[in-house]
Amino acid sequence: MSAYSIGVDLGGTNLRAAAIDDRGKMIEKISGSTHIKEGRDAVVNDMVQAIDSLRKRIPGDLAGVGIGVPGFILIEKGVIVGSNNLAPLENYPIRDEIEKRLGTKVILENDANAAALGEKWIGAGKDVNDLVLLTLGTGVGGGIVSDGRVLEGSVGMAGEIGHITVVPNGNPCGCGNTGCLEKHASATAIGAMARLIGLGADLTALDVYNLAVKDDRRAKAIFTSMGQHLGIALATLINIFNFPLYLLSGGPLPAWDFFAPAMIAEVEKRSFTYRNAPTRIEKATLGNEAGLYGAAYLPLLHRH
Amino acid sequence: MSAYSIGVDLGGTNLRAAAIDDRGKMIEKISGSTHIKEGRDAVVNDMVQAIDSLRKRIPGDLAGVGIGVPGFILIEKGVIVGSNNLAPLENYPIRDEIEKRLGTKVILENDANAAALGEKWIGAGKDVNDLVLLTLGTGVGGGIVSDGRVLEGSVGMAGEIGHITVVPNGNPCGCGNTGCLEKHASATAIGAMARLIGLGADLTALDVYNLAVKDDRRAKAIFTSMGQHLGIALATLINIFNFPLYLLSGGPLPAWDFFAPAMIAEVEKRSFTYRNAPTRIEKATLGNEAGLYGAAYLPLLHRH
Repeated sequence: MSAYSIGVDLGGTNLRAAAIDDRGKMIEKISGSTHIKEGRDAVVNDMVQAIDSLRKRIPGDLAGVGIGVPGFILIEKGVIVGSNNLAPLENYPIRDEIEKRLGTKVILENDANAAALGEKWIGAGKDVNDLVLLTLGTGVGGGIVSDGRVLEGSVGMAGEIGHITVVPNGNPCGCGNTGCLEKHASATAIGAMARLIGLGADLTALDVYNLAVKDDRRAKAIFTSMGQHLGIALATLINIFNFPLYLLSGGPLPAWDFFAPAMIAEVEKRSFTYRNAPTRIEKATLGNEAGLYGAAYLPLLHRH
Repeated sequence: MSAYSIGVDLGGTNLRAAAIDDRGKMIEKISGSTHIKEGRDAVVNDMVQAIDSLRKRIPGDLAGVGIGVPGFILIEKGVIVGSNNLAPLENYPIRDEIEKRLGTKVILENDANAAALGEKWIGAGKDVNDLVLLTLGTGVGGGIVSDGRVLEGSVGMAGEIGHITVVPNGNPCGCGNTGCLEKHASATAIGAMARLIGLGADLTALDVYNLAVKDDRRAKAIFTSMGQHLGIALATLINIFNFPLYLLSGGPLPAWDFFAPAMIAEVEKRSFTYRNAPTRIEKATLGNEAGLYGAAYLPLLHRH
């Protein structure tokens, strides 16, 4: 009987869990809500219940459970130390608690790191061993896969690409910096720019995209700006890593044709390596599922 | 009889070779000049002769030869593809030629990568497995050691930290970019800033340092600017890698007390990870020898 693993994606809004076999085939998925307002124990109970119900129904050996969470984590301790969306879970031994209740191996990981690993396993990066993923959403998440594994750093905080400086005196960020990539290129930043230039006070990234499709000059300028800032960050990443593949995912991806030309122009200008070594910048292919696949892959990887 | 290895540091001006044993003890060193004006063959002959004369005098098994060169290299092919100082050696099978003439294993590496590895082996980084080294000189070189080995990237161009953008519309760089770190924080940049603000037309970084020691306000402002730009780059590196150690080396190091306060202030502002995970920013300790040690370590590492 083949082995399988369970991946969990614990977001601020949604809680999802999926059983995935060791060849990357999804066997079953459960989707629910994250009841963060009901407190820490409610969230942990929901997770344990979801994992347990999958385990009871799936035949085969459970290799373990991987959990992707938004925020800064300490990977050795299995603890969330900073998370805008999951603040009640900060500094709580969430990994050990779930491990104890289930009696199986649990690995905690940052959600963007998990998504990068998912894309490497069975997504747009399955033909390479080294890639960087940027997830464009409320913020900008980053995950780095080096030699087939997540680059964790000394405590598990590697890959915080959303907080690299792209405009030294740019927009202020909650992290304490000014000009973080995520304040100039996230879905949230698109909405903020729309407001700034008087396009509308409460437009979403999708609204701005729809205006761009209708050839609205200002909406298109917003995506050009977003592309330029993504390009600065990507050129930095390419100069640092010389990896073969850089992936983008997230809500603004449909606007690719509006932001990518400015992004690529910036990368070409700013990276000798991009111009001289084979380097692809592409759309990720697993969408929202990447984090589930990557989380499930973690215990399979660590088994070897 | 213990094994030893030969490290070569091929600079635009100096050619040095050293025999180093497998515990990192330097046995013998040869220092000469790089006769680049006499052409490619003269340089290759000098290298082969230096290596061979060491080999003839040293007892024990030669594990191989490592050669550090300034510039962009293709590591698998053993070829230099871009080098301001060694242009006549570009696109020539230098590694294979030397290997053939000596009949021993030769590894070509970027000089800053070699220096980073040297610092990891027996220098300031010997107690860690992951570090980044910045070498401040004519330009700014970078070397990344991850899990005890040089991060090479897909063709060997990883670690080009001197060319990451720290000022999007900053000083133009020969690489095609504007605002590269090395145009705002190298020894050359210090001299250029001195000229720009009327401190002197032909001052070296050392001259500017001597003025700063005499409490010259403008000389001190130059080091503050240099520190700020180093800080932007270091914060980016820390956010990306979450490594425990970042090292600086090179001519401007004596000016540490003038540039480091601004550098650290910038890092503290721009990196949540720096503020929350144990992270050291320190002086490298091997100076000019780092590249020799690292080059010699390459064949020892690849033996395992």
